[in-house]
Amino acid sequence: MSYIEGRKPWSEGATHREDGTSTVEGFIHRIRDMGGFSFLVVRTGRAMVQCVLEESVKEKSGRQLETGDTVRLEGVRVPETRAAGGFEIRISHVEILSRPSAQPQVPLTRRKMDISIDVNLDNRPISLRHPHERAIFIIQEALVQAFRLFLSGNGFTEVHTPKIQAAGAEGGANIFKLDYFGHPAFLGQSPQLYKQMMVGVFGRVFEVAPVFRAEKHNTTRHLNEYISMDFEMGFLHGMQDIMETETAYLRFAMQYLKEKCAAELALLGAVLPEVGAIPVMKFKDAKKTVVEYFGKKLGGHGDLDPEEEVLLCEYAKKELGSEFIFITHYPSPRRPFYAMDDPEDPGYAFSFDLLFRGLEITTGGQRIHDHAMQVGKMQEHGIDPAEFKDYLQIHACGMPPHGGLGLGLERLTQQILGYKNIRQASLFPRDLKRMLP
Amino acid sequence: MSYIEGRKPWSEGATHREDGTSTVEGFIHRIRDMGGFSFLVVRTGRAMVQCVLEESVKEKSGRQLETGDTVRLEGVRVPETRAAGGFEIRISHVEILSRPSAQPQVPLTRRKMDISIDVNLDNRPISLRHPHERAIFIIQEALVQAFRLFLSGNGFTEVHTPKIQAAGAEGGANIFKLDYFGHPAFLGQSPQLYKQMMVGVFGRVFEVAPVFRAEKHNTTRHLNEYISMDFEMGFLHGMQDIMETETAYLRFAMQYLKEKCAAELALLGAVLPEVGAIPVMKFKDAKKTVVEYFGKKLGGHGDLDPEEEVLLCEYAKKELGSEFIFITHYPSPRRPFYAMDDPEDPGYAFSFDLLFRGLEITTGGQRIHDHAMQVGKMQEHGIDPAEFKDYLQIHACGMPPHGGLGLGLERLTQQILGYKNIRQASLFPRDLKRMLP
Repeated sequence: MSYIEGRKPWSEGATHREDGTSTVEGFIHRIRDMGGFSFLVVRTGRAMVQCVLEESVKEKSGRQLETGDTVRLEGVRVPETRAAGGFEIRISHVEILSRPSAQPQVPLTRRKMDISIDVNLDNRPISLRHPHERAIFIIQEALVQAFRLFLSGNGFTEVHTPKIQAAGAEGGANIFKLDYFGHPAFLGQSPQLYKQMMVGVFGRVFEVAPVFRAEKHNTTRHLNEYISMDFEMGFLHGMQDIMETETAYLRFAMQYLKEKCAAELALLGAVLPEVGAIPVMKFKDAKKTVVEYFGKKLGGHGDLDPEEEVLLCEYAKKELGSEFIFITHYPSPRRPFYAMDDPEDPGYAFSFDLLFRGLEITTGGQRIHDHAMQVGKMQEHGIDPAEFKDYLQIHACGMPPHGGLGLGLERLTQQILGYKNIRQASLFPRDLKRMLP
Repeated sequence: MSYIEGRKPWSEGATHREDGTSTVEGFIHRIRDMGGFSFLVVRTGRAMVQCVLEESVKEKSGRQLETGDTVRLEGVRVPETRAAGGFEIRISHVEILSRPSAQPQVPLTRRKMDISIDVNLDNRPISLRHPHERAIFIIQEALVQAFRLFLSGNGFTEVHTPKIQAAGAEGGANIFKLDYFGHPAFLGQSPQLYKQMMVGVFGRVFEVAPVFRAEKHNTTRHLNEYISMDFEMGFLHGMQDIMETETAYLRFAMQYLKEKCAAELALLGAVLPEVGAIPVMKFKDAKKTVVEYFGKKLGGHGDLDPEEEVLLCEYAKKELGSEFIFITHYPSPRRPFYAMDDPEDPGYAFSFDLLFRGLEITTGGQRIHDHAMQVGKMQEHGIDPAEFKDYLQIHACGMPPHGGLGLGLERLTQQILGYKNIRQASLFPRDLKRMLP
């Protein structure tokens, strides 16, 4: 896919030619003067490249190189097993493109920055330049690539649905309001209603896009804006199809990470989970397990609380040999108006959460496809069906049995990498107190 | 990538097995009774499948099939050159999954719906089910896939930047405001400042995400929310690199469409443009051409107006043999504060628009990377640099020469397909009067 004659392909900040010469473009990360020559480490687009600069070349280039300079270096590639990538560049020509006017507020050149999350986030445009920080987002990119590749390969169509919406899909107070030319509007909490509409069009759809939640708790597991990886599939045989699709995605994604991100995973010391057959437990049994296995009585009846999620994952790992566990059949009144009830288990919905290493990373389920049933359910929830007349068109004109899920990208990244705070897995996190940078 | 044992791969709504049997899942689009047997057309996820239903099978299945039913059909695949896809399915088993309770408000089964854009949009959840409508978005999906494939293959990293922002990148009044936990916030008009920050991290980045413009004109070329395909690249040799990258993308994308969307392009009668070397004309000369070639004096001095865009494309096609034309070197005061001036052409910026078939589809340019120059430019624009202190960190700590562009996905789709109204190229368009469905 070479496209600028004589200069491409540019990959990870360097152009390597067949004649053994290379061009390296990047930031001077570190300079070590060895007397007579210097070792340079150049931080390119996605890699660290070791270079050797002889005194004679240095003199020709005029200005002295300094840490933070952006440069274009020409040289010859020489095998060097001790350098990252297995080679170093003997520089023959130096071009300094720009020079910083200030030192970074964070210790970019240290192996580990060892700074607080607040200092990290306050200086985010610079702290992200640290090899550890950017490795997180190379892995995150791969998770998204794998999501798209896997779903596109299985008959799903990618869609783009509007974020400015007239009604909230999830209800509740955690919704951002805005003025839309004099009319009240909301920022989408999820693409839920739209992705269901699109099932009637394409059968299977997915979307990777921001969602917005005005939740007022400042925790290590919530963001007020995050990337939701959503899919929705029609012609279900049952909720099982959705969980099998997610399991297969996770298996595919972990394999993809192994192949594409080995260096980044090693740098961050991440251990990928094995994705076998993920155990499934009903909500009722999950509550019972917390009481009987751990001797604790926690949370309410409608949902699992964070400590219960931790305990259930502990249980799944010890007793079921899995770092993942599906919890299914949540109490129906606590699930949204579009969730389908299990006729064989009245009061419980065909809904599920996926827990991974102590944290919920997915909510999903089968949806109501029958018009009369959906109208009835709205009325049970105290919702006026007339407010959802566009949405109800799809039920009236015919919908197949369908369902889907939303998978939080930052949470998945966080749990794979073992971070305590979700903010580490967002480029520019938004929380109760932070909308900068 | 088969993942549910015995049932997959599901592709476009059908599973075809090696033993010659198939499962078809979809909507009954049309039924033609031939006496003794019926022809069925089934609208699956992305295709139309012709099926033959014998009287004997019909009787076994109990209920009569009706248009709009969602079904799962089992049968044997038989070559049939007159059917789309070159085969038909002789049905051996019928399962009706759901039945509509109302007829669609739009003539879904007509070859062309021939309805007004308003009726189309008012009934969007259903009108999108028409084969013509959904073909538009299969083509749109391919344009996005090509964008990502092309850029990922050329050293770009995909990023996700926040849409809730504290400052507007483009300035002006066309910005949606919201209340962010008691603080004023804005919906991103573009990822501009963030993608520049990310150039310091990855060298080359891209993002495909919604942007929000509170523009008050209700035209056929504006949406208030649209998908912007953005990239930003460091280590530029000049603005030319950006334009060459866009040209190479367009060439790649048209080839990709030819390979992936031949059926949809044929259905819509679309003619793809040839992407050769795209001609480049300075803004000054463009204004002169409108006067001298067309004998018209139009628009202001700061920008091109829509009629000028049409005329310049007419000129480019007739005189330069291209359906695309780059217009460069716009007057500096009308370009945003981050645009770099051309030192050899004072008062004009290293900025460009790409016009295609009469419409601007891209704005791009080289950005200021020097800290003192950026601070000075902000002051010229009457902007307090202190308000952009996070952004200015990147200039202070060092930035390579860089630039990029934003390409409007709906405009690109619209122009490729030759539509008069951009709303036809958005699943659920948002305009001055419409935020439903």
